[in-house]
Amino acid sequence: MRLAAGPEKTLIDFGLRRAQGLGGIHATRAAMIGGFNGTSNVHAGKTYGIPVTGTMAHSWVQSFDEELGAFRAYAELYPESCVLLVDTYSTLESGVPNAITVAGEMAERGQKLKGIRLDSGDLAYFSGRARRMLDEAGLNDVQIHVSNQLDEVVIRSLMSQSAPIDGFGVGTRLVTADGDPALGGVYKQSMIGNRPTMKVSENPEKVTLPGVKKVWRTLDSDGFFAGDAIGLADQEDPERFHHPVFPVKNTPLRGLRTMELLVDVMSGGESLVEERDLGSIAAYSRSRLDSLPPEVLRFENPHEYKVGITPELMELRDRFLRDKM
Amino acid sequence: MRLAAGPEKTLIDFGLRRAQGLGGIHATRAAMIGGFNGTSNVHAGKTYGIPVTGTMAHSWVQSFDEELGAFRAYAELYPESCVLLVDTYSTLESGVPNAITVAGEMAERGQKLKGIRLDSGDLAYFSGRARRMLDEAGLNDVQIHVSNQLDEVVIRSLMSQSAPIDGFGVGTRLVTADGDPALGGVYKQSMIGNRPTMKVSENPEKVTLPGVKKVWRTLDSDGFFAGDAIGLADQEDPERFHHPVFPVKNTPLRGLRTMELLVDVMSGGESLVEERDLGSIAAYSRSRLDSLPPEVLRFENPHEYKVGITPELMELRDRFLRDKM
Repeated sequence: MRLAAGPEKTLIDFGLRRAQGLGGIHATRAAMIGGFNGTSNVHAGKTYGIPVTGTMAHSWVQSFDEELGAFRAYAELYPESCVLLVDTYSTLESGVPNAITVAGEMAERGQKLKGIRLDSGDLAYFSGRARRMLDEAGLNDVQIHVSNQLDEVVIRSLMSQSAPIDGFGVGTRLVTADGDPALGGVYKQSMIGNRPTMKVSENPEKVTLPGVKKVWRTLDSDGFFAGDAIGLADQEDPERFHHPVFPVKNTPLRGLRTMELLVDVMSGGESLVEERDLGSIAAYSRSRLDSLPPEVLRFENPHEYKVGITPELMELRDRFLRDKM
Repeated sequence: MRLAAGPEKTLIDFGLRRAQGLGGIHATRAAMIGGFNGTSNVHAGKTYGIPVTGTMAHSWVQSFDEELGAFRAYAELYPESCVLLVDTYSTLESGVPNAITVAGEMAERGQKLKGIRLDSGDLAYFSGRARRMLDEAGLNDVQIHVSNQLDEVVIRSLMSQSAPIDGFGVGTRLVTADGDPALGGVYKQSMIGNRPTMKVSENPEKVTLPGVKKVWRTLDSDGFFAGDAIGLADQEDPERFHHPVFPVKNTPLRGLRTMELLVDVMSGGESLVEERDLGSIAAYSRSRLDSLPPEVLRFENPHEYKVGITPELMELRDRFLRDKM
């Protein structure tokens, strides 16, 4: 979503009510690492020191006799961070005009309306119309925030239409994983004492790699990540790595810079790494993403990042396969 | 999944490792209500009194020098409930033959091998081949259980091929909701004191219904559920109900039996209902499913169950809409 929105837009996590159990708290933390700017989740905000933000609910507007009265009451309570939800009745006939009225009243008190939020309808159309109405009222710096089943596809579409949107509030699609609801990873045994072991399986993709491993990441001459080689922990630095299923496809490593990826994090029950704050984790995550070649980060048909195995590991696996089948 | 598998097959929940947090515990309970027979989730078994069952992991087999040794050790530990996982190396060349060997050794000790489990490959093909090998060894009552990314579609396909499978172990697709990862429901305000209220919204499907409600379920002459009418709590029993968006489509209720669906469950902070055990909840769930017309339960293109609104509720909604738009 951050890649789709670009670096300038505000992205806010609205996901708590849609997550399963504590998943909402963890998703908020993960969103911040991925480049979000804040959350409506007060607990996560307190726990992780994340900026907490939000706007009114529709029930706030409905609990007043008139929308204008609801806006006025909210502006008095939150003069510094007043974002008005304008689609409870009619966005263009009622919501935006009432917001403009309240912005004028706030200005008379020396205050400033921060923004409006659209939560339904065609967000490109309504944000364009609302922007024009606000601008015509001299409210060029009143922001427009949107929400309503947003995801990276919708955000990208709104960006490509140059919709005048300042911030996106994302819920469901941020904290749940539509179409990919579980990480299909499992622990499989690869070593018993000094004896490497592996699972063969009738499905080739479920065949595991035996032994204790090490991972080398290679960098191309521009400093971009060029591929990862999985090999045996006790082997020499590899000279090439092979596609795990089509071994004739292989990548020579001679002349390329490599770095080892695996780091000991626990030993004898003790953590070996210092805890880092969320900001520095997010910055690290960003720097690693920036080191991926652009074609890997492409939205449509991204290039597949190469991950292969060293000749030494391939030989151990294939010897094992010959013995067991 | 129970509808796809039919009433006779064993369905076991294997989902804990794939669920989010406590979701695994709740999913196990829900699976039992939906007609599952047991779980590999020991905590949920203890908490809710659910039969706990399971088979060995691949790591058990891998931790021995030979598959046969792993099977023998397991049979000695679990002579009453011995299900052998036969696909760690080669299902037909190694797993099933070794299981047959162990079944013979158990028979000599007056014990019985309970079953085998297949976890990879074409389950229709391998279950057929394994069944024949077991039968030829006189092991007609050794069961065949399968697992590996099962869901209602795969189960139905295996059933339609008459695959000789006795039980299905289901994980990921039972405890996560692929393609539908969140229930898109929200609380919306419908009454403030004595004043009905509603949200209009730019999206028609987000328009809410005002007022305090009541729901009538109608039954056809065969006793099947025929549709539900949502109306106002203080109105008379309705004479018909209307499609909420196309009001000319309406269903007369004269002569049909109706039952009221809403029941008070809390009052003044006290629960008004007795807690029921899981078995009686599952039986109730089953009886309600049995009351749905078969065309609603159909796998492909099920008929949509009618839910409409009474003329009284429609009038209140439309009056509100005219005032606010």
